[in-house]
Amino acid sequence: MITDLHHFLSEEAKSRRPSPLKVAFKYYGQEGLVFLGGGLPMSDYFPWEKIVAYSPSAPFTGSAGIAEKPSDTGKATITELKKQKVESYDIPLARSLQYGYTSGQPELLDFVKKHTEIIHHPPYEEWDAITSIGNTEAWDSTLRTFCNAGDTVLFEEYTFPSAVETANALSVSFAPVHMDSYGIVPEELEKLMANWDSSKPKPKLLYTICTGQNPTGSSLSDERRKQIYKIACKYDFIIVEDEPYYFLQMGEYDAKADATKMKTPTHEEFLNSLVKSFLSMDLEGRVIRLDSCSKVFAPGTRLGWIVAQKDILERYVRLHEVTIQTSSGFTQSIVAGLLGRWGQEGFIDWLIGLRKEYAIKRNFTVHCLDKYMPKIVSYTPPVAGMFFTVSIDASKHPRFATEYDSDPVKVEDAVFNRALKEGSLMIPGSWFRSPNFEIKDDTFFFRGTYAAVDLEKLDLGLERFGKAIKEVFEIE
Amino acid sequence: MITDLHHFLSEEAKSRRPSPLKVAFKYYGQEGLVFLGGGLPMSDYFPWEKIVAYSPSAPFTGSAGIAEKPSDTGKATITELKKQKVESYDIPLARSLQYGYTSGQPELLDFVKKHTEIIHHPPYEEWDAITSIGNTEAWDSTLRTFCNAGDTVLFEEYTFPSAVETANALSVSFAPVHMDSYGIVPEELEKLMANWDSSKPKPKLLYTICTGQNPTGSSLSDERRKQIYKIACKYDFIIVEDEPYYFLQMGEYDAKADATKMKTPTHEEFLNSLVKSFLSMDLEGRVIRLDSCSKVFAPGTRLGWIVAQKDILERYVRLHEVTIQTSSGFTQSIVAGLLGRWGQEGFIDWLIGLRKEYAIKRNFTVHCLDKYMPKIVSYTPPVAGMFFTVSIDASKHPRFATEYDSDPVKVEDAVFNRALKEGSLMIPGSWFRSPNFEIKDDTFFFRGTYAAVDLEKLDLGLERFGKAIKEVFEIE
Repeated sequence: MITDLHHFLSEEAKSRRPSPLKVAFKYYGQEGLVFLGGGLPMSDYFPWEKIVAYSPSAPFTGSAGIAEKPSDTGKATITELKKQKVESYDIPLARSLQYGYTSGQPELLDFVKKHTEIIHHPPYEEWDAITSIGNTEAWDSTLRTFCNAGDTVLFEEYTFPSAVETANALSVSFAPVHMDSYGIVPEELEKLMANWDSSKPKPKLLYTICTGQNPTGSSLSDERRKQIYKIACKYDFIIVEDEPYYFLQMGEYDAKADATKMKTPTHEEFLNSLVKSFLSMDLEGRVIRLDSCSKVFAPGTRLGWIVAQKDILERYVRLHEVTIQTSSGFTQSIVAGLLGRWGQEGFIDWLIGLRKEYAIKRNFTVHCLDKYMPKIVSYTPPVAGMFFTVSIDASKHPRFATEYDSDPVKVEDAVFNRALKEGSLMIPGSWFRSPNFEIKDDTFFFRGTYAAVDLEKLDLGLERFGKAIKEVFEIE
Repeated sequence: MITDLHHFLSEEAKSRRPSPLKVAFKYYGQEGLVFLGGGLPMSDYFPWEKIVAYSPSAPFTGSAGIAEKPSDTGKATITELKKQKVESYDIPLARSLQYGYTSGQPELLDFVKKHTEIIHHPPYEEWDAITSIGNTEAWDSTLRTFCNAGDTVLFEEYTFPSAVETANALSVSFAPVHMDSYGIVPEELEKLMANWDSSKPKPKLLYTICTGQNPTGSSLSDERRKQIYKIACKYDFIIVEDEPYYFLQMGEYDAKADATKMKTPTHEEFLNSLVKSFLSMDLEGRVIRLDSCSKVFAPGTRLGWIVAQKDILERYVRLHEVTIQTSSGFTQSIVAGLLGRWGQEGFIDWLIGLRKEYAIKRNFTVHCLDKYMPKIVSYTPPVAGMFFTVSIDASKHPRFATEYDSDPVKVEDAVFNRALKEGSLMIPGSWFRSPNFEIKDDTFFFRGTYAAVDLEKLDLGLERFGKAIKEVFEIE
């Protein structure tokens, strides 16, 4: 039995009415009717006759989809978008470049829903999916749909600063949830909720980047997710799972394994290896899942999708109608054309290949950390995502009290500046602190990424960073 | 001397801070630095090797750009977007599909700014342009940038319902401004402001669709615009000119002229024929201009641009960073590739051709109205845009008082339903009333469009509509 989420809606969301013009549009296309109602330019005037997009070809017979570029193999998946429909999954430009379909083009939604079914099997009937223009927009729309000024949102202690900034400008109140190296600690969340000061608004949302968390690189285990979901049901709040890194699940780090020689798993093995999403255990329909093309395809697609209860998504659609309208028609046609040609199986091939690339980089990063970091540095090899962290106990500095006033952030700052001089940049962990979160110990950390550079640079950057730490801490 | 607009900013806009990560990004690309700071996926992993877009070729030697399709002429403008840069105006996919450039890709902004200079010559130095994802989004962002709940916005009495809905959900207060067949009446606006109830918040914004207004089809003359601008300066408010139809300026209707044989103007003649924008007279920098590709190219591009004071646009960029980020990279690459190949002159050719198409349709529409509408119907041939209106004095109905309770909306409704039965649909004017606007007379109107159908259907639709009016009004 799903929960009615309407009591969570913001005043803004409650007040949104459908456009009166929708009443007219229900007659659009009616047999024999001359429709002079809508200001739609004729597609004859669109200046694009045809778009052709060249992509790697599925099925990917080698070990990795992304290793097989058309230029390397001579193969190519060609999406040719004329004004007429080419294949059943193609969205003709005459439609994708026209007004309409705020919730997303049907062909694209069809693929996305089947994909969601394969990956997450949402355990209730009334779920649906709509497109977004990426998780940043989806998160902003989520806040506008649920939060009035002063409403409380649960955030991970360390989180993505843009997500904070989005909420901050809407005057949301922040409640940080304690994490360790494996993400949110369920017992701490339970304690927080059990002792909630009843004079303050009860949290409506928990915002979590639960897989390959930004910035900590941590990932919640299946077990922790189950516990957190139970707490959400008990204390009646919504879980917003922001999951851009979900498919970058490299698995446990094995110092002896050579990721380049990793056996390509079967699709079944791959699917079984994925951590259970909150959506997959969402019997009550209280999860809003945000998925994105940014990390699995490219950030500039500006395309993502939101999965939630159908009638909650209706409120998002009302919002989208008067803000973004929908994502770019070029994007929708090109992405649907690619996914259609690949099929669900080809897409999974691609994801397997992508994961392998990240596994190679993750492993290489850990080798470098083992090689270059002094003993005072600790790190947990990430099992997912783009980020890793290195942590240091600032109190180990010989002059922590005298030179740094016993303030770990001052030591962090010294390391940042020293590393810059050495020619390496990672981001200080304190920059990711969520509001109202007070650090209780002397540990600081840096967030690095293995996503954006090649292995050679990664090695060089980490060597320099290790040197900087040694210099600041005066380690031989 | 431009006016400082900061006192107009909303609490939300004032509270927006740049992401702390920006501090790190200023080191990005620094010589010799290994940057492990940003979670940017490598473009090697983007699954699009190349995009090729086929478009009509400039210069358009015939009478109309849009008449010259590649399929008709064998000519084509081919934008080929490889990972490497092809031409100086091309945006490589490796960049457009990556994160960054929230305010828009430089090549596109460069074109847009030169275009703005050619068309509007903004009369102050500190103006700038950023991309939007269309005027709906730009209007929402404008409201969020300037309005707190309860702030007053001036709206045209009849306006675009989505623009109202956007404002309504933000709890904005509406002040309707009186219009006639030629748009806002400056004397009425002056009166409204002079008699403003000082217990109510003074209007911050005037929202106007000043050319080819939706729904009335009216366009403000140069003279009215000057007067309105003066009133804005006197009473200190911002003018938001929402101008999707600006380039659909067909000029005065001439019953004797054959639009299909209209002489193609020189570029100079064309530019001189355009009505002066508010931006073009904006000595004080108090205009926010919203331009869009939706009507000149295609709605599904989801691309537009905002012109305003540079440091006000900075507030929009902070907002965009945590909402839409930027418009689709596919869109930006494809549109910049097209515009770059056409050049400013080719784009003007295109606009001249587009205007001609709309002039043909406008003229045809007026011919049909002359032919089919009974005498009680009045209409002013539009000089711009996609819309026309037909107005009727409801009190001319023989049983206005007895059958319709002297309510013009009831007569309007009867006409709407009758026309539907006849097989023709236009939108009732009352659906476009802005909040707080009370109709003072017995006139009602319908909005039609000549944009979306061909001439044959237009003729049929108007014949049927005329018949419906005659039936309801019992005219032989």
